[in-house]
Amino acid sequence: MKKVEDYIITIPDFPEKGVMFRDVTGVLDSGEGLQLSIDELYKLLSGVEYDVIAGVESRGFIFGMPLAYKAAKPFVPVRKKGKLPRETVEETYNLEYGTATIEIHKDSIRPGQRVVLIDDLMATGGTMEAAAHLIERCGGVVVKMLFLLELEGLNGRQKLSKYDVSSVVSYPGK
Amino acid sequence: MKKVEDYIITIPDFPEKGVMFRDVTGVLDSGEGLQLSIDELYKLLSGVEYDVIAGVESRGFIFGMPLAYKAAKPFVPVRKKGKLPRETVEETYNLEYGTATIEIHKDSIRPGQRVVLIDDLMATGGTMEAAAHLIERCGGVVVKMLFLLELEGLNGRQKLSKYDVSSVVSYPGK
Repeated sequence: MKKVEDYIITIPDFPEKGVMFRDVTGVLDSGEGLQLSIDELYKLLSGVEYDVIAGVESRGFIFGMPLAYKAAKPFVPVRKKGKLPRETVEETYNLEYGTATIEIHKDSIRPGQRVVLIDDLMATGGTMEAAAHLIERCGGVVVKMLFLLELEGLNGRQKLSKYDVSSVVSYPGK
Repeated sequence: MKKVEDYIITIPDFPEKGVMFRDVTGVLDSGEGLQLSIDELYKLLSGVEYDVIAGVESRGFIFGMPLAYKAAKPFVPVRKKGKLPRETVEETYNLEYGTATIEIHKDSIRPGQRVVLIDDLMATGGTMEAAAHLIERCGGVVVKMLFLLELEGLNGRQKLSKYDVSSVVSYPGK
């Protein structure tokens, strides 16, 4: 039986020489791969009590929404700045070059709500840390961080050490 | 029993005076609204034979992925230019001010495949028409266009008249 890692497409030397790019869109190329990846993420939530699933634009939407559907939970889209129509809270964080700003609707998380945060790939963990701060500023509690893939060589686990982090597939290196 | 329209949040005079902004993120605020919106979209596919679901970044991902999961079909993300790592085909189209470019992986649609295209909102239909051209340039056939909401006053149906278009909720006006 095929595993999630069998559906990941590795592109050597992209975007630059020496980097093995892991293309998660490969799991979407078949109904089997797609269902398997969602079902494996769902298994990681076994025993976790939570009220809301939040996903980071836009690949966090791809994996977060089917989970929310399956679990019958609300979904909070964490979006790039300027795309949400109602009142928001925002957080700016550092990228390798420059900064990025993400935001959520202020009323999308209520104080005390238990939140599962999801994204496709854990690299440095910077985006997920910023997303967690947004949840916490609304009074939410991040009870789980979920990733389909994890790149162990970029020390994301260290940056996210105060959270409960799980991933379906983990690769050594960057 | 609540209907999908009961979950849509209307924001008057956003982004400018006289426009009634329909905020689809309201359906995501509860597990019931979220499941209902996906189930209603799924009903519109009853009797349609298709191989693939394609959704336009990024709200088309939000509604397209749970459908793909439920139907056990592949999902093709139609993305803004520059985000897909493998070989792509791209299409540039006109916006009210300026242009936009979207693309898909060249190998994501095979000749003859029947494709359901999905987005959250039909306004002028320009983005969806461009997405359909991408599918067709890969040899795919668009057998259905699905929207959660439709704004009737912007003549999207006219622009998309060669396609089979369905929406869950339709509003007169813009």
